[in-house]
Amino acid sequence: MVTIDQAMEALRAVMDPELGRNIVELGMVKDLSVKHDRISFTLALTTPTCPVRDRMSAQAREALVALDGVQGVEIKMGELTAEEKARIMPDQPQKQEGAAERFNNIEKVIAVMSGKGGVGKSLVSGLLAVALRRQGHRVGILDADITGPSIPRMFFSTHRHPQSGPVGLLPVESKTGIKVMSINLLLPSEDEAVIWRGPLISGAIKQFWGDVLWGDLDYLVVDLPPGTSDASLTVMQSLPLSGVVLVTSPQGLADMVVAKAARMAQRLEVPLLGLIENMSYVVCPDTGKQLEVFGPSKSAAIVARFGVPLLGRLPIDPEVAQLCDIGRVEDLPAEEFVSIVERLMRNVPQAKRGMFM
Amino acid sequence: MVTIDQAMEALRAVMDPELGRNIVELGMVKDLSVKHDRISFTLALTTPTCPVRDRMSAQAREALVALDGVQGVEIKMGELTAEEKARIMPDQPQKQEGAAERFNNIEKVIAVMSGKGGVGKSLVSGLLAVALRRQGHRVGILDADITGPSIPRMFFSTHRHPQSGPVGLLPVESKTGIKVMSINLLLPSEDEAVIWRGPLISGAIKQFWGDVLWGDLDYLVVDLPPGTSDASLTVMQSLPLSGVVLVTSPQGLADMVVAKAARMAQRLEVPLLGLIENMSYVVCPDTGKQLEVFGPSKSAAIVARFGVPLLGRLPIDPEVAQLCDIGRVEDLPAEEFVSIVERLMRNVPQAKRGMFM
Repeated sequence: MVTIDQAMEALRAVMDPELGRNIVELGMVKDLSVKHDRISFTLALTTPTCPVRDRMSAQAREALVALDGVQGVEIKMGELTAEEKARIMPDQPQKQEGAAERFNNIEKVIAVMSGKGGVGKSLVSGLLAVALRRQGHRVGILDADITGPSIPRMFFSTHRHPQSGPVGLLPVESKTGIKVMSINLLLPSEDEAVIWRGPLISGAIKQFWGDVLWGDLDYLVVDLPPGTSDASLTVMQSLPLSGVVLVTSPQGLADMVVAKAARMAQRLEVPLLGLIENMSYVVCPDTGKQLEVFGPSKSAAIVARFGVPLLGRLPIDPEVAQLCDIGRVEDLPAEEFVSIVERLMRNVPQAKRGMFM
Repeated sequence: MVTIDQAMEALRAVMDPELGRNIVELGMVKDLSVKHDRISFTLALTTPTCPVRDRMSAQAREALVALDGVQGVEIKMGELTAEEKARIMPDQPQKQEGAAERFNNIEKVIAVMSGKGGVGKSLVSGLLAVALRRQGHRVGILDADITGPSIPRMFFSTHRHPQSGPVGLLPVESKTGIKVMSINLLLPSEDEAVIWRGPLISGAIKQFWGDVLWGDLDYLVVDLPPGTSDASLTVMQSLPLSGVVLVTSPQGLADMVVAKAARMAQRLEVPLLGLIENMSYVVCPDTGKQLEVFGPSKSAAIVARFGVPLLGRLPIDPEVAQLCDIGRVEDLPAEEFVSIVERLMRNVPQAKRGMFM
């Protein structure tokens, strides 16, 4: 039978990745007891929603089971007291920029871009995240539209604020577990104006990448603002993008402005993963007819010109606008997105690694 | 009877405002003859579309009529030869920044803004200019959307380039005489991407104000890009704005983002002139019913909150999209704009003067 000391010694192999020290030293192992071949203890963390809790708990279990004579391990999850936390956490001012990035493990980063505003980039970003989440992936959304952030309103019915952990901001989780970070979550009220010039915009986006504890994600969807200026440049130059999804609409001029976005991606050597046409038609509730209220589709020209696959066409749907406006994007059936995600998956390479801010 | 010398002497009082020298010294007075009480001559200018030609010609007439014994003056308009022009024009590299501004006389500057993209800012800017022009005003449009410029496509069916005069760029005139300046007029092709960070964006907008020879205008309409970053900041801080027209749509989130734009204008002390709601409904061609495809109007809340008058509501109209896409915005009846302009006029103060770049 192992002793308590032996068990504690084994647990010193488990690090809290946020704090960079082992869980015994940090006082996170509480009430450890050994009964015959079974060990039980409470793992007290800095926050119960700690994004690396499952990983730490799994490592602790492994470390104990590896000891001779241990057959079972029971771990209860707990939280440190405020004093305990204060003792072990580095002071806020000593927090290093980009400190959270070391602890993030993000498989694929997909930027949603259109060049033109109001064609439904944020809607596509949101529904793409929802569709990926429904397939069981771990998903985050980084809202890179600093002056016109639309993502929080789609996912939350009330104004939410992110918590701050020892190494960075914790994204706010939606009801289906999608991690969201947006400037609007950091403002006192959602319609506060952010009147910033380019360098601050770029700085904010870099912080959303480097100072947010995303944890383990299969997909991070990045919602870009319109235009080919600071925000798009920073995302394309500083984030390890797997590629870009283009969004267009049959509205006049959209094809021209989307072509500008496609050219930018090509020039910065970011793969074009596909094109989604939004607002393609309205279904008249009385006749069931499809009305092409913005004129006929122009996607074929973009597809042909940039060799990018058409992932899907979406109608204008009053129900969509309505639910997105009250934080219920996750309640939409969005059946079109099943095939959109399927087609997209075929084109997504692994994230480029080893890029830095 | 006056002599040719006396007539020439009198014409030395007429300055070419672009070149800062008198028309006799510049060799612009040709074939002057005196017959009894009538004087005739050709006024040869640097360009036949010179925006100050009418003013110069009127001044010449006044100067001659003031001479004793002159009853009639006949002025033919002509153009200097290339060699003559080269001799009198300052070299391009010596051109001073902001040099054109001294020759511009712009009564009212109206910025069209929404915060959110794709709600129809450019359409409103274009139709506002068309409506003002139809009332006989001298009108220009400054396209301040550098990365997503939409104005030229609405007014010109082919890709056009502005001419360069001695003190600055000459705006391109539409078929009804609206003067247009846009980054897209300066690009080799209209879908070339402009991948610029904020300082370059701001610089381009300042040049469109200070280095473009707008001449005499009653109204300059400034089409802003989405967002509250560099372009909007530069326009609000550097141009003598009479005020801002807000554009919104009933789309989800538009109200929130428009509120951000309104707050920005308030914070920078730019008057809010009115609100236009675009895409309010679609008229079903079969039933004639108005379908609120983006949900019900949300303008009442913005009107109440910011004390800004609702200038009008516009439907989604496939014909509008179609004509705007082929340079024929001036062929649209746009009857709604008659009353919109009427309401707007009541709120527009004179341009603030004496602001500098």
